[in-house]
Formats: sequence, C-alpha cells, structure tokens
Amino acid sequence: MKKEIPYKIYLSENELPKYWCNLRAFMKEKPAPMLDSATMKPITQEALSKVFCDELARQELDDTTEYIEIPQEIRDFYKMYRPAPLIRAYCLEKVLQTPAKIYYKFEGNNTSGSHKLNSAIAQAYYAKQQGLKGVTTETGAGQWGTALSMACAYFGLDCKVFMVKGSYELKPFRREVMRTYGANVTPSPSMTTEIGRKMLEQFPGTTGSLGCAISEAVEEASKNADYRYVLGSALNHVLLHQSVIGMETKSALDKYGVKADIIIGCAGGGSNLGGLIAPFMVEKLQGKADYRFIAVEPASCPTLTRGKYAYDYNDTGKICPLSKMYTLGSGFIPSANHAGGLRYHGMTSVLSELYDKGLMEARSVEQTKVFEAAEYFARIEGILPAPESSHAIRVAIDEAMKCKETGEEKTIVFGLTGTGYFDMMSYEKFHDGKMTDYIPSDEELEKSFADLPKIP
Amino acid sequence: MKKEIPYKIYLSENELPKYWCNLRAFMKEKPAPMLDSATMKPITQEALSKVFCDELARQELDDTTEYIEIPQEIRDFYKMYRPAPLIRAYCLEKVLQTPAKIYYKFEGNNTSGSHKLNSAIAQAYYAKQQGLKGVTTETGAGQWGTALSMACAYFGLDCKVFMVKGSYELKPFRREVMRTYGANVTPSPSMTTEIGRKMLEQFPGTTGSLGCAISEAVEEASKNADYRYVLGSALNHVLLHQSVIGMETKSALDKYGVKADIIIGCAGGGSNLGGLIAPFMVEKLQGKADYRFIAVEPASCPTLTRGKYAYDYNDTGKICPLSKMYTLGSGFIPSANHAGGLRYHGMTSVLSELYDKGLMEARSVEQTKVFEAAEYFARIEGILPAPESSHAIRVAIDEAMKCKETGEEKTIVFGLTGTGYFDMMSYEKFHDGKMTDYIPSDEELEKSFADLPKIP
Repeated sequence: MKKEIPYKIYLSENELPKYWCNLRAFMKEKPAPMLDSATMKPITQEALSKVFCDELARQELDDTTEYIEIPQEIRDFYKMYRPAPLIRAYCLEKVLQTPAKIYYKFEGNNTSGSHKLNSAIAQAYYAKQQGLKGVTTETGAGQWGTALSMACAYFGLDCKVFMVKGSYELKPFRREVMRTYGANVTPSPSMTTEIGRKMLEQFPGTTGSLGCAISEAVEEASKNADYRYVLGSALNHVLLHQSVIGMETKSALDKYGVKADIIIGCAGGGSNLGGLIAPFMVEKLQGKADYRFIAVEPASCPTLTRGKYAYDYNDTGKICPLSKMYTLGSGFIPSANHAGGLRYHGMTSVLSELYDKGLMEARSVEQTKVFEAAEYFARIEGILPAPESSHAIRVAIDEAMKCKETGEEKTIVFGLTGTGYFDMMSYEKFHDGKMTDYIPSDEELEKSFADLPKIP
Repeated sequence: MKKEIPYKIYLSENELPKYWCNLRAFMKEKPAPMLDSATMKPITQEALSKVFCDELARQELDDTTEYIEIPQEIRDFYKMYRPAPLIRAYCLEKVLQTPAKIYYKFEGNNTSGSHKLNSAIAQAYYAKQQGLKGVTTETGAGQWGTALSMACAYFGLDCKVFMVKGSYELKPFRREVMRTYGANVTPSPSMTTEIGRKMLEQFPGTTGSLGCAISEAVEEASKNADYRYVLGSALNHVLLHQSVIGMETKSALDKYGVKADIIIGCAGGGSNLGGLIAPFMVEKLQGKADYRFIAVEPASCPTLTRGKYAYDYNDTGKICPLSKMYTLGSGFIPSANHAGGLRYHGMTSVLSELYDKGLMEARSVEQTKVFEAAEYFARIEGILPAPESSHAIRVAIDEAMKCKETGEEKTIVFGLTGTGYFDMMSYEKFHDGKMTDYIPSDEELEKSFADLPKIP
C-alpha cells in the first residue's frame, strides 16, 4: 500500500545527507580539465590554491571520489534550515487539471532566500579551517552575496562582496541584508581594483557584469595572503555542495515510493541544477533508471541553447582559469532589460558535457512568460518565487499541460531555488505592463563568439 | 530517557491542530463585552454582522465554546505552510553561554512573512462561504495586507487594502507583493472615503494611522452589500485563529517532554501573543501548570505599560464598536520615527483583562535596543527577524542573561512572528546610526487620554 503523500515532505534532521554526491566521478567521459590562463595547460591544485581555499581547490579537481563526507560543523549549520521541504503541488495540479504529479524542492526557507547557502557555508567553513581572515566574492542578483554574508557571520570571517552595479542600484535592500550580516558591499565596477578602474574608463555608464565583478573580487583577494576568493556557482566544488539538494530530493521521493519522470531546474552557472539532478543522473549513467532532465535558461542569456561548446574564460578580466563549457563569450552582457539572475555567460563544465552528450535537454524562455508563470504560481501555491526559479516553474507548467493533452500521469519534479522578496521592482514592471523581452540576434552572438580564446 | 531535541521540531501534517482554542471560554472573569458605538450597549451578533462576516461575528461573541473545530478547507491551506517549526536556539544559547534553554516558534516561513496568514485564510474562507464578493481591510507595516491578499487569491475573493500612508511610501515592495496576489492597495488617508477626506483636510501632511485606515476600510465595506470588513488583530476571533500557534507549540514541547517556564511575545493588537499563550494560559487558569507570560511592546506605543484600562473606540473615526481594553486613546499616533508595526493604540480585551488580573506581565523596550537584538540574532541564528518580532527577541535575550547570572536552567519560549525582508529601510537607518528612540511624555499621553469616551 502506498503511503499518503503530505503537502510537504520533511525529512528528519537524522536523515540529512552525510555525503555530497560528486557527479563527475560517475561520468565515464569526464569534462575537459580547467586550463591555467597563464600556461593554457591543465591547472594544478597548487595554482588553484592561490585563488581558492586549499580544500576547495582539492575538491575542484577531484573527479574520482564518488561521495565526499560533509563535515559535522557544516551539517550542524545545515540543520538550522535543512532538510528543505519537497512540496507536492496539490493546488497547482488541481487548478491545471493535469494528470501529472508535480513536486518541487523548495530551497527558499532561509534568510538568504535561496539554495546558495548550501555552498556558502561549506566554503566559509573551509576558509575558517585554513585559518584565513576573510573571503571576497561577487554577487549578481544578490542571493549569493547574502548567503555568503550569513555564512561568514556564523564563522566570524570578514566578507567583501562586489555587487554588479545594476543590481546594487535596483536592490538597495539586498545590500542592507548583507550589511546586517556584517559584510562589506561595493558596487562593481569599482575604483578599488585595477580591472574595475579599466572598465569604468572604457565604459563609464556600465551597469556592470558578473564576469567583471568576478575579476574584481579575485584581484582584491590576491592583495592579501589571508584572503581567498570564493564563487557561488559554475565550479565543480559548488556543484558538489549543491548535491545536498538532489540527495534530499531523492531520499524524500524514495521514502514515498515515487519515481520522477522529468526533473527541471533553472540554469545560470548551473550549480542548483547540477546539485538537484546529481543522484538521479548517477542512476541514469549507471543504467539503473531513466529520467528526462531539462535545463531552463533565459532567452536573453541562452548559454546552452545558442552558445558554443568551447574553452573560455570564466571572467571578463581573463585572469581566472578557463573551462570547456557552453559559453556566449566572456564579454557577453545580457540586455539591460533582463530581470533577475541567470546572467552568467557560461555553463558549468559538468552540465555542458552532459548536455553535449544528449543526457540532458535545454530550453530557453522569455521573461514575460516567466513572470506570468511566477504570478500564477504565487496565487495558487502561495510562495512568491524568485524570477530565476520561475524559469523552472514555466517549463514545469508547460510539461504538466502536455500531460493534460496526452493524459500521461508523469511525475514532474522541479527546483524552486528561491524567493522573490527582493525582486519586487521587476514584479512591478511586470504588473505595470512595462516588462519587455529581448532575444540577442545571431550577429550579436557571433560578435561575442569572436572573442573566444584560440586554444592550441 | 529524554528524546534528543532537534534544531527544528516539525510536527507532521497529521498532527496539525484540529481545533482552535477559545481562551475566553476558560476565563472565569470574562473580558467586558464590546459596546455598540450607536447605543453604548453590548453589541449584538446582528449588529456585528453588518460589518463582519456572519460566522466571524458569531465567533467574536462566543465566550463559552472551549474548542472550535477548524474547517477542513482551512486545514488544507494550513498544510501549505504549517505546522510551523518550533526551533531550539542552540546557537544563541551557546553564544550567550546561558544555562537557559531557548525555543522560538517561527511563523515567518510563508510568503506573507508572518503569523497573520493564520487568521487571514480563516476570514477569507468564511467570507467565501457566505457568498461574498470581497473584503476590505487596513494594513500598517503590511504583513496583514499581504496575508489577506494571499488568502483572497486562494479563494478568488476581491481584496481592497487601505495601507497606512507612511508604510505605503516606506515599503513600495510590500505593495507590489499585494498586487502580485491581485489586491487593490490604497494609501490611507485617501480621497475615496469620507473619513479619509476629513483627515486629509484636517491634517494635510499626515502619514496616517492604523485607526484611520480601519475607519476607511469599514466605510468602504459598508458601501456594498457583497463586501465585509476584516481585521488582522485585536479582535476575539483573530485571537481564536491564532491559537493554532500555541496549540502547535504546546504539542511540540509535550512531544519532547519539555515544560516552558517563560513565554514571551511581542504585542501590538495582541493576536499573536494571545494565540501563542492560549493553551498554556488555559493550564494556568486551571491550576494545572504555572508559566510566566511576558508581553513586549514598543516604548513609543506603550499600551499595556502606560495605557489606561477603559472602554475606547477601536478606530480613529469612532464608527467601530468599543472595547474595554488597555488603550492610549483612539487618537494616539506613534511618533514618526517609530519603525515597524505594533503601533495600535489598544490591546485586545482578553489580554487586557489577563494583564489587569496579574496573570501576564508586560514590558516596553526602545527600538534601538530592539534592532541591536535583531541584528545579533540574525548573525547567530540565521533568520532575519521583523522589527515587531525582535521585541520578543530582546526580552528573551534579557531573560536568558538573567539565567546566566542566577545559574537557573529555565526554558524560555518566544514567538518569532515574522521576517524582516521588507523592513530593510529601517535596518539601514539602524546601520547608519540614524535610528533614534522616542518615549511619549506623560503630558502627551494625558492629552490623548482626555479623548476617552465617557461610558455612562
């Protein structure tokens, strides 16, 4: 007899995963190695350790250990907001009149408002272990900066955040949340770094980009031996930490004997999606179960659906290592009318490789359609979603409507990565009918691709 | 053997209370009856029904039924965000180095960001049952308006919100959240009602008050037979709905064999506190267990600690019924520098009576001390608290520190009623050292008391 499924499946704190799942270790064809921008050779742990904390540099290169133990201190912090609920969207199913069963993993029930905290606390922990004084980072929409501020406050670390200027101005309250947690927040580009000054000279009116903010944060960290740079997405070790999402999701489904058919997530740098699908993808790679995975990205920043699979820099300043990934070119900046995050020019190498091999699908959606889905969802399921997360909602609803047409009782699982409390200015634009869509032209992308590095 | 207490105690959905606890039914000395402002006689259900939904009018006057069943539809909605977690503040205890055990009931894990949703969904349900087209209400800090918007969206009801102008201007994003849920939001005083026009004529620059917004909402509802007015605090039926907080808290503590010693809550109109303490107060009234209850209010709006226990109007326009309560006078408006909610001039009659009989204590705190506690708490426990809730945090910390002095291992439970995401402008003032305190002078209060109605 099947157990009755509650509205919210909460695992107990004892069921919190003890291990992160290292998806790469299960891939027969590994993602191409990261290259050192100085030598264009595969980067060494030693070189990475100049930028990142030692243990994070180790994790970044580890593609053989299948499961990595989560330190007790991190698990204790996780217990303050995890396990996160897996929610059965009973109300949404009813209103859509779909035979599909819809579930979403809700990562917004913590003050940072998103899944970013899962990696922030791990990175702060390893920085503290190493005896560092502080960390630097960049933030776009602000979720990552908030999460890192919280993590640093917990471990008593100094936290310097370069916030993309457009977001800094659009979201003053995000800045205040970070200040509440003791962080130092600077709009990027800034005059405090060489790359910042260069950008401001070249483009005086720029609203900034994630790629530029990364360069500034890396430069800032390099000025002091007691600091390291930390990054909130795209990297292997971030995906590793985010696998806690997928591990919990799978445990919760298994507990109720539910098998997912389609797993959907939004994709900017790819860390939440990589984390959500990790244990499911392992089963697919091992031939134990089949799943459809769908990455959803903004039509205004269509990395997977229109990008090139090539080596590229992870930052605008071209000082970071290069990754082989789907990319729009490190100089690509999404149109100013683009709301919310998911504005990174590349896609984490693991997901890029899986997508290239046909193990994952990708879809791009326009933002007015995304906000329509967001508002619809809010009114029915109660939760006010972040614009980023609403990309996944859009496609989940679309897939559920396909089931209605075909009569298939598919089980759809999507990641609801965060809340939209700090995105009300974008919601306002949408309510007032002032939100527009933007799809970059082929010419625009070709121009951006022209800047891709030639790897010998 | 005692069970190990997790960080977060989550009851299962099956353990969600099936009944609200009607505290008044257990009081031997009942609160004085509400008076009809037209006749100055105890109000009838019939008269109340002109303003409120029929069932709510019935609940308002019911002081004999001890437990009232929660309708299934409301319980289904509750399941979308309840049971709310009872959190053991392990981290706070550790940092304070106190022998006290601290717990807090967190009501902020829903999009309205507070406990207000508990009553909003009940009131929307009864309005829908009665076949009404919509409801009107007022909102101060915006939590109640948001909650009601969500509830009305769920049941397909029209929702008109009069928002205190000061908050409307300070919190544009609150307005957008309400719009996301389809509500119509008007700054109060407005030109759409008679009382609003009168207020604007008399005080052209006014930032409004809750008392005035109530009058406007009541007037607006009276224009249409298909509408009723709903209120988010102070009234008996609101306390009744909020008892779900206390019922869950008590179940969670009982489950782990924990007996509370001190129960603390912030108090504006008194509904969250009344709901939190309900089942515990029942035990105290029955002589089954003893507890200390502490109501915490702002020093700038010191209803219990400096108000008079007398009959007074619930609104500025003096069109609503009168309640016997601790009050600062219906014309009292807290100083403009006052941040956050808890700005109501009166205190629900149930709590007023309990306080008058010495069954509950009250304490007032200054807002800079409240924000200090808020920031301290956020950095340690992760959650960014609402300024309102932080009044309770302040006193919980103070009590825990007393335990440190005396070495007593008391169990402290407080209500963390909501999150502060929409209060960052106040946090900013605090960070920038621009927040000040204000304590009304005795003369100011005497002047306000002079307006109290003379009841024959």
